[in-house]
Amino acid sequence: MGWARAEGPAAKKLWGGRFTGATDPLMEKFNESLPFDRRMWAEDIRGSQAYAKALAKAGVLTEEESATIVDGLSSVASEWEAGSFEVKQGDEDIHTANERRLSELIGPLGGKLHTGRSRNDQVATDTRLWLAGAIGRVRADLQALIAAAAERAEAELDVLMPGYTHLQPAQTVRWSHWLLCHAASWQRDDMRLADLLPRVATLPLGSGALAGNPFGVDRRFLARELGFFGGVCPNSMDAVSDRDFVAETLFAASLHLVHLSRWAEDLIIYSSGPYRFVQCSDAYATGSSLMPQKKNPDALELMRGKGGRSVGGVAAILAVIKGTPTTYNKDFQESWELMFEAVDTLHDCVRIAHGVLSTLRINPEAMRRGLSADMLATDLAEYLVRKGVPFRETHHISGAAVKMAEDRGCELSDLTPDDLRTIHPLFADDVAEVWDFRRSADMRDTEGGASERSVLEQIQKLRDYLQNA
Amino acid sequence: MGWARAEGPAAKKLWGGRFTGATDPLMEKFNESLPFDRRMWAEDIRGSQAYAKALAKAGVLTEEESATIVDGLSSVASEWEAGSFEVKQGDEDIHTANERRLSELIGPLGGKLHTGRSRNDQVATDTRLWLAGAIGRVRADLQALIAAAAERAEAELDVLMPGYTHLQPAQTVRWSHWLLCHAASWQRDDMRLADLLPRVATLPLGSGALAGNPFGVDRRFLARELGFFGGVCPNSMDAVSDRDFVAETLFAASLHLVHLSRWAEDLIIYSSGPYRFVQCSDAYATGSSLMPQKKNPDALELMRGKGGRSVGGVAAILAVIKGTPTTYNKDFQESWELMFEAVDTLHDCVRIAHGVLSTLRINPEAMRRGLSADMLATDLAEYLVRKGVPFRETHHISGAAVKMAEDRGCELSDLTPDDLRTIHPLFADDVAEVWDFRRSADMRDTEGGASERSVLEQIQKLRDYLQNA
Amino acid sequence: MGWARAEGPAAKKLWGGRFTGATDPLMEKFNESLPFDRRMWAEDIRGSQAYAKALAKAGVLTEEESATIVDGLSSVASEWEAGSFEVKQGDEDIHTANERRLSELIGPLGGKLHTGRSRNDQVATDTRLWLAGAIGRVRADLQALIAAAAERAEAELDVLMPGYTHLQPAQTVRWSHWLLCHAASWQRDDMRLADLLPRVATLPLGSGALAGNPFGVDRRFLARELGFFGGVCPNSMDAVSDRDFVAETLFAASLHLVHLSRWAEDLIIYSSGPYRFVQCSDAYATGSSLMPQKKNPDALELMRGKGGRSVGGVAAILAVIKGTPTTYNKDFQESWELMFEAVDTLHDCVRIAHGVLSTLRINPEAMRRGLSADMLATDLAEYLVRKGVPFRETHHISGAAVKMAEDRGCELSDLTPDDLRTIHPLFADDVAEVWDFRRSADMRDTEGGASERSVLEQIQKLRDYLQNA
Amino acid sequence: MGWARAEGPAAKKLWGGRFTGATDPLMEKFNESLPFDRRMWAEDIRGSQAYAKALAKAGVLTEEESATIVDGLSSVASEWEAGSFEVKQGDEDIHTANERRLSELIGPLGGKLHTGRSRNDQVATDTRLWLAGAIGRVRADLQALIAAAAERAEAELDVLMPGYTHLQPAQTVRWSHWLLCHAASWQRDDMRLADLLPRVATLPLGSGALAGNPFGVDRRFLARELGFFGGVCPNSMDAVSDRDFVAETLFAASLHLVHLSRWAEDLIIYSSGPYRFVQCSDAYATGSSLMPQKKNPDALELMRGKGGRSVGGVAAILAVIKGTPTTYNKDFQESWELMFEAVDTLHDCVRIAHGVLSTLRINPEAMRRGLSADMLATDLAEYLVRKGVPFRETHHISGAAVKMAEDRGCELSDLTPDDLRTIHPLFADDVAEVWDFRRSADMRDTEGGASERSVLEQIQKLRDYLQNA
Repeated sequence: MGWARAEGPAAKKLWGGRFTGATDPLMEKFNESLPFDRRMWAEDIRGSQAYAKALAKAGVLTEEESATIVDGLSSVASEWEAGSFEVKQGDEDIHTANERRLSELIGPLGGKLHTGRSRNDQVATDTRLWLAGAIGRVRADLQALIAAAAERAEAELDVLMPGYTHLQPAQTVRWSHWLLCHAASWQRDDMRLADLLPRVATLPLGSGALAGNPFGVDRRFLARELGFFGGVCPNSMDAVSDRDFVAETLFAASLHLVHLSRWAEDLIIYSSGPYRFVQCSDAYATGSSLMPQKKNPDALELMRGKGGRSVGGVAAILAVIKGTPTTYNKDFQESWELMFEAVDTLHDCVRIAHGVLSTLRINPEAMRRGLSADMLATDLAEYLVRKGVPFRETHHISGAAVKMAEDRGCELSDLTPDDLRTIHPLFADDVAEVWDFRRSADMRDTEGGASERSVLEQIQKLRDYLQNA
Repeated sequence: MGWARAEGPAAKKLWGGRFTGATDPLMEKFNESLPFDRRMWAEDIRGSQAYAKALAKAGVLTEEESATIVDGLSSVASEWEAGSFEVKQGDEDIHTANERRLSELIGPLGGKLHTGRSRNDQVATDTRLWLAGAIGRVRADLQALIAAAAERAEAELDVLMPGYTHLQPAQTVRWSHWLLCHAASWQRDDMRLADLLPRVATLPLGSGALAGNPFGVDRRFLARELGFFGGVCPNSMDAVSDRDFVAETLFAASLHLVHLSRWAEDLIIYSSGPYRFVQCSDAYATGSSLMPQKKNPDALELMRGKGGRSVGGVAAILAVIKGTPTTYNKDFQESWELMFEAVDTLHDCVRIAHGVLSTLRINPEAMRRGLSADMLATDLAEYLVRKGVPFRETHHISGAAVKMAEDRGCELSDLTPDDLRTIHPLFADDVAEVWDFRRSADMRDTEGGASERSVLEQIQKLRDYLQNA
Repeated sequence: MGWARAEGPAAKKLWGGRFTGATDPLMEKFNESLPFDRRMWAEDIRGSQAYAKALAKAGVLTEEESATIVDGLSSVASEWEAGSFEVKQGDEDIHTANERRLSELIGPLGGKLHTGRSRNDQVATDTRLWLAGAIGRVRADLQALIAAAAERAEAELDVLMPGYTHLQPAQTVRWSHWLLCHAASWQRDDMRLADLLPRVATLPLGSGALAGNPFGVDRRFLARELGFFGGVCPNSMDAVSDRDFVAETLFAASLHLVHLSRWAEDLIIYSSGPYRFVQCSDAYATGSSLMPQKKNPDALELMRGKGGRSVGGVAAILAVIKGTPTTYNKDFQESWELMFEAVDTLHDCVRIAHGVLSTLRINPEAMRRGLSADMLATDLAEYLVRKGVPFRETHHISGAAVKMAEDRGCELSDLTPDDLRTIHPLFADDVAEVWDFRRSADMRDTEGGASERSVLEQIQKLRDYLQNA
Repeated sequence: MGWARAEGPAAKKLWGGRFTGATDPLMEKFNESLPFDRRMWAEDIRGSQAYAKALAKAGVLTEEESATIVDGLSSVASEWEAGSFEVKQGDEDIHTANERRLSELIGPLGGKLHTGRSRNDQVATDTRLWLAGAIGRVRADLQALIAAAAERAEAELDVLMPGYTHLQPAQTVRWSHWLLCHAASWQRDDMRLADLLPRVATLPLGSGALAGNPFGVDRRFLARELGFFGGVCPNSMDAVSDRDFVAETLFAASLHLVHLSRWAEDLIIYSSGPYRFVQCSDAYATGSSLMPQKKNPDALELMRGKGGRSVGGVAAILAVIKGTPTTYNKDFQESWELMFEAVDTLHDCVRIAHGVLSTLRINPEAMRRGLSADMLATDLAEYLVRKGVPFRETHHISGAAVKMAEDRGCELSDLTPDDLRTIHPLFADDVAEVWDFRRSADMRDTEGGASERSVLEQIQKLRDYLQNA
């Protein structure tokens, strides 16, 4: 029918010796997904058990057949649990492996399980089940991390530190305020996971290869049975085509890892040479093979590196999805490796961050030494604001004071009220009250500010969130 | 004090002639943000007006001062609206420009507006205000696109087409089912935008440079006044540090553009050489400068390209954010260009997709010609399933029938019941009913399937969603 | 000295129960690189052997000591080869493992090997050695792929096919021309690998931790000994800081995978429903669990997916590198996994592409059916150009002819010379010669064109390149 | 012929009101490339002039016709130069605009210019011409940056600073050594640009739409005429399909920007709170709207941000290219914006880095204060190595000395020879020589090390490179 075969002996010689045309072992390795998808053995079995029940409800199986299949699948599950499940030649994926074993255990009846189902809807079901569970586990540990930050913020409420913008000393804040800054970003990460979860927990089963199920299985029953609280996928073609839930998870994971990377970078800087505000515990640091004095914050650097790598994961999944026509394509195999890698990395990093945070030593004296009088220049301007001078003008006045101190080679706080009055007449003797770092922090007493009251309020709000999350 | 200056005349000669040390025009260009942030003039003014009211409530301004500022800002706004606002030397960003003009109009009182505020919390406020508005506009057009797909799906309910997996003909579906497949993905995109909106519409104002506001402004009042329904940012350092809302928006935009890219790719293939299922209207196609017969689906290709570019936008914003220490850093200037570009592209593509979809011509006959009898092989297997043969067995039987037809060089549907009975005895004469494409689609009558009933149900559910969105 | 410990019993309770402060098993897993870097055992040993010789040349070791170390390392290598090397507790990376084993075999003398060396320069040396070798292996297989394309192009020189732009039928080309189009992109990929190789094969050894080697080892000797033909890294801080060679390799790999993805996408479309120009051999396709008639081009889809994933790899390595301060940081551990994954994927895909290409069946009749007369519209215009009519005018004339045929519902080639003369008087009877697809291809006889002569010339040039590569 | 039109009045009402089917202004904006490609007006004209000559050589034009066209194009060029070129309705791209104007100037003969040419090969030619020129300009400035680093390194050779790994103080290096570390990475960037340039400067002209040129134009003549020293694109389909040169350039740009980002990050840290090693000149820093004392290193932060954004550019171009079938597709329009943006950013950053570097003030005293005795622990170990103790043992001995100093709360260098002899008997009184930071740096005297000799050698090698680049 017009086909020019490249498979005759002559042809084979022409453009490649190593290929038999029948099999290519490299291709088999490339194609098989069992090394990855075996992690979803439990979800594959749960999904099949629910499907067997739905087939019975739909009259495709008798109740007895259904029960036999469900029990057989439980036996398969026991083998996986016991580590005794034996993978055989031809088990190219977890679905094939489980069905093969089921039929060995219960005979030809096993061949009825796949009625009206396709691996296209099956694999999507397994993946979503696994991922919904994994997100739940990650959230629990993420919330524990947030709680740890809140507890530490409460315990170390009195420690002052320089707050930086552009990595330049800016204003006095509490160490607790810095901790809560990061906790606030982690809280958003948790909210994002909560938001995307219903889109993960939406049921594709019953969509067949792409056109739907011809045996009338009750998809809402399946959704309830399997805990898909997001409902059923509304369109069967979309159901086998959709890997958004993987992309969303990778993005949410990446943004959290980016947050941990920023947090780690702060701590790396704070533990560096002249800062020495903090020090990683030995459990999260290592030495040098050459330099005996070194103690390197490896855990923090690894997290920073994972943040970078996660950016690539998001780009990868988007580029993979973008490259596919509608419905199922084999390209989606990439989505598992990316998903497992991202979720594992996310989970590891959350827990390691918790460990680092819980065991970190801080050096309040070094933080205090980092505070310098010029960080109170804004307070000096605000002093005049309270006396009615427009802020824009006070900003210049305070700038002049900073310059006067620089020119004299002294601290801003060394300027006397008399010195200051040469710049503006409204400076009174009570200006000396300005030179108090704790007062500076406590002045910022609006919601979200650095004052003691506000920091305690922030802690309470975080705890309320965790209570209800 | 130990500083080795590279600024003396000798030094200058040493390592670079063109630099005066005082100014570098290239740096000024590099630094200025007005070319981008002027788009937010209205938000900047709204934010300042609310802030002036809050200063009055806090007792920092008198009611009269506050009213004068609010009115002055309205005058500035009028100038922007009328196109008469004049940018001056030194207006390095929209905040500086507006405050400069305000003071020209109302005098030194203008210098009280910035009391307790920093550009750090101001720019975050402006950006979030702008973005929340923009997302609202995009969602309206996205919902119109979804509605158009639903209407077209209803109007063309009877058109059958081949459904593909792996781009290989798989099973018969409705053209409407394909339309709704994409509408389902767009609906998720709309839900994602709805989910992230509260995290955009959270108020940073009142956070100052990083440590909070020392004048007791009521941030909940500000949030209400400005429509920040997500509440106030909980921590002032986080408030000036957080660009998650940009990253989230870019991701949501990218995922939608990836969806449009897949949709476009389908249509490009469907309008290609031997397919000819669809044809873009002239408004969305162009000719060739060399080949007179060509009509190219440019709009679709441009959307496919935008999808690719958007992947980079997500990677870019994540890499930018990752690279910054806590709180505000100038790197964030990148977030505007990325945000404006992403939102504009998103909005354009949504509307162009609507135009393409609304004017696309379809060729039902060509779609029908694309249906081939072997696409009914699954139906043949299901025929036997209904007679009690395990599916796994029927799959092999139907495969044998496919091979028999191939060997004879005939269509699968040309096999007679007698032919089929040579493969399995349970084939009866009524097997002929299987050879009906419409029946095949209508058999998939579960929720989300390709049947007429299910497709109408999908349309209804979409409309219910749009009603309440 | 001011350190507030979070390690006392009370503190531990405060913010995290599971941490002892001493060890965190998760951190150990996170930190250890042996699972990845053990792949470089041979390079680690070669590098150490060369270093032992250099230490002898520098007078740090006696010749005898050096020989004992070199022999001891050979014994360690034998254990790896034989699979008998035993990893022990504390072997956190390949360097530690090999040195530990060496000292077990030869005693305390083993402790002299690391003199003046750091793991920072050692790991960079091992990685570059491994990568240079791997690139060589990939290039060999890539060149074999190019050669196969050339051979197939020669063997199937006579097969005509529609050439597409915008996936719309454009002009007649040879199937060989399409093959050579992709071979040309693969040739660039090979050139890129050749270009970057010297930057991989540049020696970091002798840079110590960051400041250089204090024992005067001869780095040029080391470079020669280890085959670093790119010379020595010019600056010791850069030498331990530089992971450009990984980034460059990932980019080159990604661009090749993007090329394979485009090639695969063409073939997926050409093997789809109404095209059927080509068919993957069984070795590179799979069936469906539900639809008996399906044969899906899995190998091509997997390559397309790998292309998408590789985009993420490039973004990842750039983001990782960007996030690090100068010199060595633990973040670089990410570069191995990314490198191994990218190189393995690249190598697999090159060989699988070779297999697919070598066994692909083509359908010249289907390709021929894809040619339609309107694809000769440009030739019709060129006919008039040769008679002196300006091209821009002939383009409109030919367009008018296309429209005339469309209006009549006939093929362009069905128009008679008389018909055409109603459009332009210069159409003579010899215009009929235009309706010849082979002639159309053969007219494009410039260098690089679709003519038989040009295609043969292209094949020859490719072979010349491969001869000298 | 089976087409269901969505263009009748009824249909229009059905799924979209705003579309006339005839034109969509948004689509016109989306489609037009003149806003971008007008930057290539000069290259478009140069390419056309060369092509007119080639058409004459091929006998398609008379010499006179060719000369008229070449002159006409020169007139068009003059209009662009003078800023008097008038864009008209319908000038959808630079090619159309220039040809339209040419024909206005010289009449219908203008319509002969496009003979055998397509915008597909034309735009590729223009783009490559522009890019090759731009890369040349960037390289000149990049080499000036490298030269400035070399000069500064020479002038400030005597300044010692702490060298960091993991951002922890590691060993003493020269400030010049740090400068040259970055210069070494910039040199690689320059080499990469040199390597890719021939792949940019390869001629696509003469490839037509995709199948080649039917009028026998001499492509080698064209290549010489236009300075395409990389030769001619070998395959016409590839020639219009290939955007590798854009991707390669974006990658090379990104890697350089990543290098500048790391350099900037170092400088940001070195200019931060407790470090104060360096200070940006006023030309590259800005103040705060709120905090009078602030001076922020904006230029460095902007470069760091650009580095992040550039990562996205690479991902974007790869994802765009990946998404296209072979030959020309409209998606490629994205490649221009990405290319212009990347090249402009690259060029700006190179020049701003030069400005920052040339005007940066350093504080040698602060750097010196950053040196601490424990950074000599490796030197202490090396002292014993020179007395024959195996390094691995000396590393532990030195570690014990570090601990002894820590326990005593003194500096490592405060330990007396007697103290040290309690740890190991081979410590003699000359051990005091170890406590010399300059000596420590000068001991690293191998090629690439931190010694004075080696640093001067590095400077010389850089200059040799620049001489020949």
